Amino acid sequence: MTSEQPLFERMALIGLGLLGSSLARVAKRDGLVGHIAGSTRSRETLERAFELGFLDSIHETPAEAVEGADLVVLCAPVGANADIAAAIAGSLRPGAIVTDVGSVKQAIVRDVGPYIPAGVHLVPGHPVAGTEKSGPDHGFAELFEDRYCILTPPPGTDEAAVDKVGELWRRAGSRVEVMDPHHHDRVLAITSHLPHLIAYTIVGTASDLENQLLREDAENGDVVRTRDVIRYSAGGFRDFTRIAASPPEMWRDIFLNNRETVLEMLGRFTEDLTALQRAIRWGEGDKLHDWFERTREIRQGVVDMGQAGSFNPVEDKDANEA
Amino acid sequence: MTSEQPLFERMALIGLGLLGSSLARVAKRDGLVGHIAGSTRSRETLERAFELGFLDSIHETPAEAVEGADLVVLCAPVGANADIAAAIAGSLRPGAIVTDVGSVKQAIVRDVGPYIPAGVHLVPGHPVAGTEKSGPDHGFAELFEDRYCILTPPPGTDEAAVDKVGELWRRAGSRVEVMDPHHHDRVLAITSHLPHLIAYTIVGTASDLENQLLREDAENGDVVRTRDVIRYSAGGFRDFTRIAASPPEMWRDIFLNNRETVLEMLGRFTEDLTALQRAIRWGEGDKLHDWFERTREIRQGVVDMGQAGSFNPVEDKDANEA
Repeated sequence: MTSEQPLFERMALIGLGLLGSSLARVAKRDGLVGHIAGSTRSRETLERAFELGFLDSIHETPAEAVEGADLVVLCAPVGANADIAAAIAGSLRPGAIVTDVGSVKQAIVRDVGPYIPAGVHLVPGHPVAGTEKSGPDHGFAELFEDRYCILTPPPGTDEAAVDKVGELWRRAGSRVEVMDPHHHDRVLAITSHLPHLIAYTIVGTASDLENQLLREDAENGDVVRTRDVIRYSAGGFRDFTRIAASPPEMWRDIFLNNRETVLEMLGRFTEDLTALQRAIRWGEGDKLHDWFERTREIRQGVVDMGQAGSFNPVEDKDANEA
Repeated sequence: MTSEQPLFERMALIGLGLLGSSLARVAKRDGLVGHIAGSTRSRETLERAFELGFLDSIHETPAEAVEGADLVVLCAPVGANADIAAAIAGSLRPGAIVTDVGSVKQAIVRDVGPYIPAGVHLVPGHPVAGTEKSGPDHGFAELFEDRYCILTPPPGTDEAAVDKVGELWRRAGSRVEVMDPHHHDRVLAITSHLPHLIAYTIVGTASDLENQLLREDAENGDVVRTRDVIRYSAGGFRDFTRIAASPPEMWRDIFLNNRETVLEMLGRFTEDLTALQRAIRWGEGDKLHDWFERTREIRQGVVDMGQAGSFNPVEDKDANEA
């Protein structure tokens, strides 16, 4: 890939967390862009990112960073996008493309769209990739390989601009799909936002229970068992703790900016959970069994579509252990 | 380990799924027991298990399998234990130990205890290990390494019998803990049973939504998008599909046999989820942020206690891919 021409002369990254720093790393490694300029809110993060070597220049303000850039990538938590758009609007070069990496796509059209000057192209994007880690130290160039990247251009967006952003993600290793923002926000609400909310919830619920059990032990004069909830997490809880370690600010913004759709999905989930709860209370084993049979088939679909490994028990077990 | 003496002369396994076949494999590999006898409900599974080479004899009925055994391990779904106990009671050898591998421990004392003759020792056990796969083909000798195994002997149980069962699991690689069945069932309800129920629920909810979206596309004359929910599962949903692929019969029995405790935990979870739902509806970002900060710390506890890998993003990513 390094033999190909750069796709953009100058890329400005606003936000240098896991996604921004990963994009910078793959762009630098494979020569996808010429100059890489970076800016982020925290001075400390900005300097650390520069130390890590994947940026060509750092800037105190987003407006400075985007000067002369033909590609601007918004990588801050989605709640910050409106302010950033207002700040950079006057500094955007004619013909520049503005894109982002956020997990909600109706909100960026709503928040950022009004600030985009004539002659500048807004191509919202969402690489469906990530880990529970945040910050520039945890990014890596391979993050986007074999992952989907969804572009949600508003009607009338310049097709050449959409193609160019798509090509950037393809060269970063991703499979690129285009869809409308409303469909994106519904699909991601159920496949990503709701799973995160549920994981956050149960990990908090479990932690509160653990503290209560410890207090009871102490009051009863029993030996105080330390951290039983964590000790026995291999029974299923462990996977939820990983998801519930995701960056708080990023996820707060996602829930608040995809509010109506997340609330709709929560309603659907709660109805189904209540039905299963009732089946447990009334001992309706057949209902439970039928539901569990059905969900088992869905896993096979995930495996078949290459979004989960074909199972290797020993390796999988090792991957989960210290 | 092979240089050590076998701990038992003859081990009878009733049930030859993931756990039973894994125990047989490690016992055979390391010479933990002399003869290994097996029995299971399905004739086909019984013959397949024998073909796999980790059994010394197979038997059409549990009663035949336990004849002469000094260790009997119940490895069937927990709902089958009462019938099995009734069937084997008359064939148990004096001094034999009966143990199990089930995820609920008050129920086995209740269901199996009454059938245990004088002079035979009941030592309920629960290796906190497993994968979403079932059946004798998917077992492996390393399954129990570095996992906890919880023993819940009723008051007055022979200490030598408890020690001997503990030693078997230690030699299989596990860390052995002893606790009372009530405490076990509460801790596992929150760390294992509730996470499974929630994963089963959301995977079903998502599947229903996907089918609805496909119908809407077809009705509107739009291009029908295939399997978007699975396609974008890397955003968090994927981990839930793995858990929701767990064996339906086993999990039906767990929920029905730990009913009261699971319902209690569901109540706690639903209260917390409703509080977060309200915070989303009313835009209370600080409440969400505080909750998410707290759950993040709990993940660190899981990592610190060696129940989750210290993070290697590239390997972890690979482990999840085809």
